[in-house]
Amino acid sequence: MLMIYFDSDYMAGAHPQVMQALAESNLEATTGYGTDAYTARAAEKIRQACQSPQARVHFLVGGTQTNATVIDGLLARHQGVLAAESAHINVHESGAIEASGHKVLTLPQHEGKVWASEVKAYIDHFYRDDSYEHMVAPGMLYISFPTEYGTVYSLQELSELSQVCHEAGIPLYVDGARLGYGLAASDVSLPDMARLCDVFYIGGTKVGALFGEAVVINNEQLLKHFFPLIKQHGALLAKGRLLGVQFDSLFSEGLYEKIGREAVAKALRLKAAFTEKGYRSEVDSPTNQQFFRLPNTLIDRLKEEVSFEYWGPRGQQESVVRFVCSWNTLDADIDHLISLL
Amino acid sequence: MLMIYFDSDYMAGAHPQVMQALAESNLEATTGYGTDAYTARAAEKIRQACQSPQARVHFLVGGTQTNATVIDGLLARHQGVLAAESAHINVHESGAIEASGHKVLTLPQHEGKVWASEVKAYIDHFYRDDSYEHMVAPGMLYISFPTEYGTVYSLQELSELSQVCHEAGIPLYVDGARLGYGLAASDVSLPDMARLCDVFYIGGTKVGALFGEAVVINNEQLLKHFFPLIKQHGALLAKGRLLGVQFDSLFSEGLYEKIGREAVAKALRLKAAFTEKGYRSEVDSPTNQQFFRLPNTLIDRLKEEVSFEYWGPRGQQESVVRFVCSWNTLDADIDHLISLL
Amino acid sequence: MLMIYFDSDYMAGAHPQVMQALAESNLEATTGYGTDAYTARAAEKIRQACQSPQARVHFLVGGTQTNATVIDGLLARHQGVLAAESAHINVHESGAIEASGHKVLTLPQHEGKVWASEVKAYIDHFYRDDSYEHMVAPGMLYISFPTEYGTVYSLQELSELSQVCHEAGIPLYVDGARLGYGLAASDVSLPDMARLCDVFYIGGTKVGALFGEAVVINNEQLLKHFFPLIKQHGALLAKGRLLGVQFDSLFSEGLYEKIGREAVAKALRLKAAFTEKGYRSEVDSPTNQQFFRLPNTLIDRLKEEVSFEYWGPRGQQESVVRFVCSWNTLDADIDHLISLL
Amino acid sequence: MLMIYFDSDYMAGAHPQVMQALAESNLEATTGYGTDAYTARAAEKIRQACQSPQARVHFLVGGTQTNATVIDGLLARHQGVLAAESAHINVHESGAIEASGHKVLTLPQHEGKVWASEVKAYIDHFYRDDSYEHMVAPGMLYISFPTEYGTVYSLQELSELSQVCHEAGIPLYVDGARLGYGLAASDVSLPDMARLCDVFYIGGTKVGALFGEAVVINNEQLLKHFFPLIKQHGALLAKGRLLGVQFDSLFSEGLYEKIGREAVAKALRLKAAFTEKGYRSEVDSPTNQQFFRLPNTLIDRLKEEVSFEYWGPRGQQESVVRFVCSWNTLDADIDHLISLL
Repeated sequence: MLMIYFDSDYMAGAHPQVMQALAESNLEATTGYGTDAYTARAAEKIRQACQSPQARVHFLVGGTQTNATVIDGLLARHQGVLAAESAHINVHESGAIEASGHKVLTLPQHEGKVWASEVKAYIDHFYRDDSYEHMVAPGMLYISFPTEYGTVYSLQELSELSQVCHEAGIPLYVDGARLGYGLAASDVSLPDMARLCDVFYIGGTKVGALFGEAVVINNEQLLKHFFPLIKQHGALLAKGRLLGVQFDSLFSEGLYEKIGREAVAKALRLKAAFTEKGYRSEVDSPTNQQFFRLPNTLIDRLKEEVSFEYWGPRGQQESVVRFVCSWNTLDADIDHLISLL
Repeated sequence: MLMIYFDSDYMAGAHPQVMQALAESNLEATTGYGTDAYTARAAEKIRQACQSPQARVHFLVGGTQTNATVIDGLLARHQGVLAAESAHINVHESGAIEASGHKVLTLPQHEGKVWASEVKAYIDHFYRDDSYEHMVAPGMLYISFPTEYGTVYSLQELSELSQVCHEAGIPLYVDGARLGYGLAASDVSLPDMARLCDVFYIGGTKVGALFGEAVVINNEQLLKHFFPLIKQHGALLAKGRLLGVQFDSLFSEGLYEKIGREAVAKALRLKAAFTEKGYRSEVDSPTNQQFFRLPNTLIDRLKEEVSFEYWGPRGQQESVVRFVCSWNTLDADIDHLISLL
Repeated sequence: MLMIYFDSDYMAGAHPQVMQALAESNLEATTGYGTDAYTARAAEKIRQACQSPQARVHFLVGGTQTNATVIDGLLARHQGVLAAESAHINVHESGAIEASGHKVLTLPQHEGKVWASEVKAYIDHFYRDDSYEHMVAPGMLYISFPTEYGTVYSLQELSELSQVCHEAGIPLYVDGARLGYGLAASDVSLPDMARLCDVFYIGGTKVGALFGEAVVINNEQLLKHFFPLIKQHGALLAKGRLLGVQFDSLFSEGLYEKIGREAVAKALRLKAAFTEKGYRSEVDSPTNQQFFRLPNTLIDRLKEEVSFEYWGPRGQQESVVRFVCSWNTLDADIDHLISLL
Repeated sequence: MLMIYFDSDYMAGAHPQVMQALAESNLEATTGYGTDAYTARAAEKIRQACQSPQARVHFLVGGTQTNATVIDGLLARHQGVLAAESAHINVHESGAIEASGHKVLTLPQHEGKVWASEVKAYIDHFYRDDSYEHMVAPGMLYISFPTEYGTVYSLQELSELSQVCHEAGIPLYVDGARLGYGLAASDVSLPDMARLCDVFYIGGTKVGALFGEAVVINNEQLLKHFFPLIKQHGALLAKGRLLGVQFDSLFSEGLYEKIGREAVAKALRLKAAFTEKGYRSEVDSPTNQQFFRLPNTLIDRLKEEVSFEYWGPRGQQESVVRFVCSWNTLDADIDHLISLL
């Protein structure tokens, strides 16, 4: 029996159009390190999609290295990065932020999100403490969009975070590892991101590319010497044009949006089916990651034909599991999974 | 007129066989981070090619991140890495080694190579200094093979370096970014590397892959917790199987050796032609990188049809330039270039 | 009117006997960096007081640098340090631990203490997580004794922590910035510390010295290259004998114990007086730091004649304040403060 | 027979006036971390001595920590520090600069000094290299005054260095561990230092204090968040007033200048005597450190009554040795040593 996979959105290679672009350009000779025409064109397309003509765009290989490089570049030595307790940088990056010398200052998470009011309270409280110079100063805010739990910030929420950061004089940085799915599931657009965030990245690895993340620097005062920092962090791809080719393809004919939209639609179909059968979502996620609380007996049965992630027990009889859709998820896979419920 | 390119060995994509393997596996779903079957198979093939059944093999994306991660893992906090003044880690990695806290301790370079006698003298001198505990202890030796100038160590020289390190109780690490070309141009074999070096890496980026470097850990006492270190350094590829697929392909049917052998043959044909015309090699390189001292007038003329790197002036009339061959260099390109001399 | 001070235990210089020893040795010439006879003698006296003849003893200048140096020396790069949320290293050291590359992994605090059961649960939970290699491994446990809230671990509690660490194969490190006060207030002795902890330090700055902390390394497998690490962390005092002279004096004729005992007795007299007047201790501290919840009106009145630290409001009418006793606290000061209640 | 000591200028405690000031203030209670009145007064006296009313002055404990903290604060992450090969930060600080992430970029040393022309050439050459963004950018210049070999920069030389740095837009930082001796031996004054250097420190440890270095920040754009950086580097003294008391004393009644002047006079008397006897200076030092090339037979004979440092052999018959004078060197010591020649 054939297994179907819902483990994650980085199990297959690249979207066929992206792969074709790589194959077609394969024998071409270009200069390295992102100085080629493909990279320039991809950057320009991203600027246009963001309606942000002055933005600087850099392409890195993966998410953890992007977070570490950007955060290291944004913070002064005495500063740390504010982030939700559940933030990827706080939990699942093997201490990459600390390894470059910075503390992650944690905020409570609300289904993976931070609240503007709590960010503001943290900062206010910090500077009211007489001994604040003995403590790590909040130097920037990190959020993920969508979050690690698949949730998204509304335009209103993002605007509030932006304003709190602006008033505190610290940059807002958005980890967009799954940005395509977040844009498809919220009222936030790429131009909104560019307008409200100082720096964000557009995830490729999980949204159609073999690999690659596009860092968009909207605040021109920041990251002025980003190139050597990328190199120093080991995040500079020799054949940089591979990133250019992929993002050029993703930002042609609306492919990036399409991938996000379709995967989210499939995930919501799944969610509706689970709900209809009486199963509960652990988090009310509107994106391509869905978390359900299922009876262990059902989980065992599903596992014979379907692969997905186990997130942990809830009492003796139930557990939380994750199902993820991507451009590589077939309608037939969804149908089949639903038929097993 | 069509330009022909000799700038570097990372201007094109992947060798067609490698690209085909990526294309064929593209839609397949596998687990991430190198836990897939392709990666396991590639590692096994490398162990066999090295005749080193106990070796651990890890795949990283690029050279700078590989150097930074390995060196960080090998050194204690009070130690630095011995390397030639001209070493890539000392000159062209934007301070990645220092950024992870370690000093590069420089040795004189002799056409890019270090001498075993000078390594030994450094270490002896260090421990004879009464104040050595106020200084950075030599904790490992880094060499590149071939070197940044295209030269190679003979088996005898490599054995001597290995012995000096062994006696001093410090590991020998080899940066093999262009290892394929070095193996094709020396009496050193992969099993020799595995026998003599504690850790080395087999470069893919410059030898047929889109990207990727295979770290071979021969000394089982070392780098016991290498996986989290890879992650911490931002060097863990989410779709790790892309590296497995590529190295599986490179280590099938002798492709890796073939790429090295053919590019070196082309480079030597070029060298012979320049020599015959009376031009001098700046370094006597037996590998795919050739450095010639040419009249500036010739350089200007060549530049109209050929792209190559300028390395610096030698007096008023001459300059040193670099020509590099790879799997993507055509015999016709060589012929054409020779015809222009 | 003369002010009396209860702000902290580092407001005055050194205990007169310590100061006298410094004055008497002032014109003497000795070699630097702790290679002198005073330092050797102080180390030997500490080994004897600890009944730990094989212990290595190093003297550093201050607490934060001691914590940063020891922790950096104990952890591998992929590891972090477990500590209470309220731990000094987590809150009040300006990110010194992270600046040397390590994450502080926080545990719940119970009046400043961690529970052995929670340490064990953290470690167990960590290694049960499939993705633990993407996370920062718990590599050691840090506790303070007494804690930041003045509380102490009982011998039983310390033994349990030691056992949990031992079983997990990670070292136990104790920050003894105020160790003298902790020993005076618990059933734990210096030989117990040496037996149960891999590394701990005996605080001098807050217990009679001008400055200085004595690191005692009981586990001979650890910190084998501690000297260059001290230097690297900028924690090596050129005139190292100043530390030797002071600790030699503190560990002569029971001075260190005496200072601890007397200050604790004064603090407890204060506590009894506050309690008798009906005021509540915020934390039930048995050491030289006392935390009371007082009416704001009383606080305002006291502040006219007494200096002490404000810790924060409790509702509208009350606040928590701290009173600290030291060798420099006079009985008359205590009497006068009590008379004001 | 009594030994006389010329090993270094940090063998005794503090100048008696400084020690007296410490003793007199010993029982006084003050707030910590340099927020006391002594520290404020010392800072003000230094500002006056520098004729630099806007300068910020911070007090740290030792030289290595001062260098590491200042350099870490001045450099961006992609930058390194230019320094002579023989610079203390490059040789004798156990990698403290690299441990905080920065490369030391070495320049040739000329009796311990760097040449403005070579600094300029380094910077020019760097930015002419096409691949400079793959290299560590020169972000500041470090010099020591006097140098590790006892030599000093003339006002003219210092002005040239200042101008080169100014034109390149990088700060000039002076390690003044022995500044007092340098000022006594050159045409450079404290106001010159303040005018020409962005940051420098006034060494106390080797010039009359028990310990302590006063960092003077003349360029108000720099090190704006220096306090938390001091704390992060473990360089913040809890009883900060100890530094204030000492520098207050050193900058009263010209004590600091007097100590420098007298020690230099003694050293020059020694130099004259050696020269008269026909012995050669290895370096033509005008300060309190003197380096002589002596017959090994003489060295052996001297060692019976005099303690001094051995710097290394010069051929079979001779060696270089160092004699250092300080406030603690008696005229009788000099006389006796001369009598032995």
